Amino acid sequence: MQSAVFTAVGQLVGAGERETMTIPQVAELAGVNPTSIYRRWGTIGDLLGEVAVAALTQGEDLPDHGVLADDLGDWSRIIAFDIARPKRRAYLRAMASARDGIVEACPCWEIRREQATQMIERAAARGERVPSVRQVLDHIIAPLYHHAVFALPIDDDYATDLAGDVMAMVR
Amino acid sequence: MQSAVFTAVGQLVGAGERETMTIPQVAELAGVNPTSIYRRWGTIGDLLGEVAVAALTQGEDLPDHGVLADDLGDWSRIIAFDIARPKRRAYLRAMASARDGIVEACPCWEIRREQATQMIERAAARGERVPSVRQVLDHIIAPLYHHAVFALPIDDDYATDLAGDVMAMVR
Repeated sequence: MQSAVFTAVGQLVGAGERETMTIPQVAELAGVNPTSIYRRWGTIGDLLGEVAVAALTQGEDLPDHGVLADDLGDWSRIIAFDIARPKRRAYLRAMASARDGIVEACPCWEIRREQATQMIERAAARGERVPSVRQVLDHIIAPLYHHAVFALPIDDDYATDLAGDVMAMVR
Repeated sequence: MQSAVFTAVGQLVGAGERETMTIPQVAELAGVNPTSIYRRWGTIGDLLGEVAVAALTQGEDLPDHGVLADDLGDWSRIIAFDIARPKRRAYLRAMASARDGIVEACPCWEIRREQATQMIERAAARGERVPSVRQVLDHIIAPLYHHAVFALPIDDDYATDLAGDVMAMVR
């Protein structure tokens, strides 16, 4: 049941119904009894919190080691660990599969953009040479999500390599 | 109907049934009459050829300009143009959504690996400094597919930037 529920949530988020979805809607789409969802998760907010809230987006502190290379490495590994979990992969896939037409931005992408901007601005203020925000998103976040969605392996070393590649662009 | 058919093909390919799928199977999954598929595409091979065969994989020549930066730029733009088409996006999304468990490689990824290897080996033989095959896949192919699947915009400039970023890693 859990997998069907996460997939249903992903489809609804992908279809732009994140703000309006209800437990009965999720239940119907997942083909499960709403009572089971209420019993397991309580509210739609708790359910969304478990599956649709990404790592480092609930007020946890961003990495801040005083060196951008270390910050990006940590950030990449934390996100990699998060999206490699089967329930997050199922959710991300369902979200993508429900997309229709081109969107200028997706909510998750925007959160990562803000985080990348913050880490880069701190580093630039310290006088470090820094990559652009676009480079950080395209070369850390995009490959991680690509691997999650297409079911390719993701581990710490992979996340570390991606962050290293981005820093190599500005050496 | 076309969109339902492409999505059904994507789901079957994603579920590992590329070699064995039949038109009746596609028709059932798409909820359309098999006769309509036979009339429009003739054979399962023709249908697969239209939707599931990526750019540069049908014997066309790989870019070969004598400079890796130009080859990667061209290659990136050709693939970007291919996967930005709505039917390819729908197919890729359906393929991803049918994935279950971790695969060590997906067929499309492997074709791109071979192409990247060929372009890199030619450049290395000319004495150029070259990125690794992994870097080319992670920083050109993965972001393009990420953008296709999550419905973010893809254009020539984006494809050009990605290739430029990879070359910046080895400067």
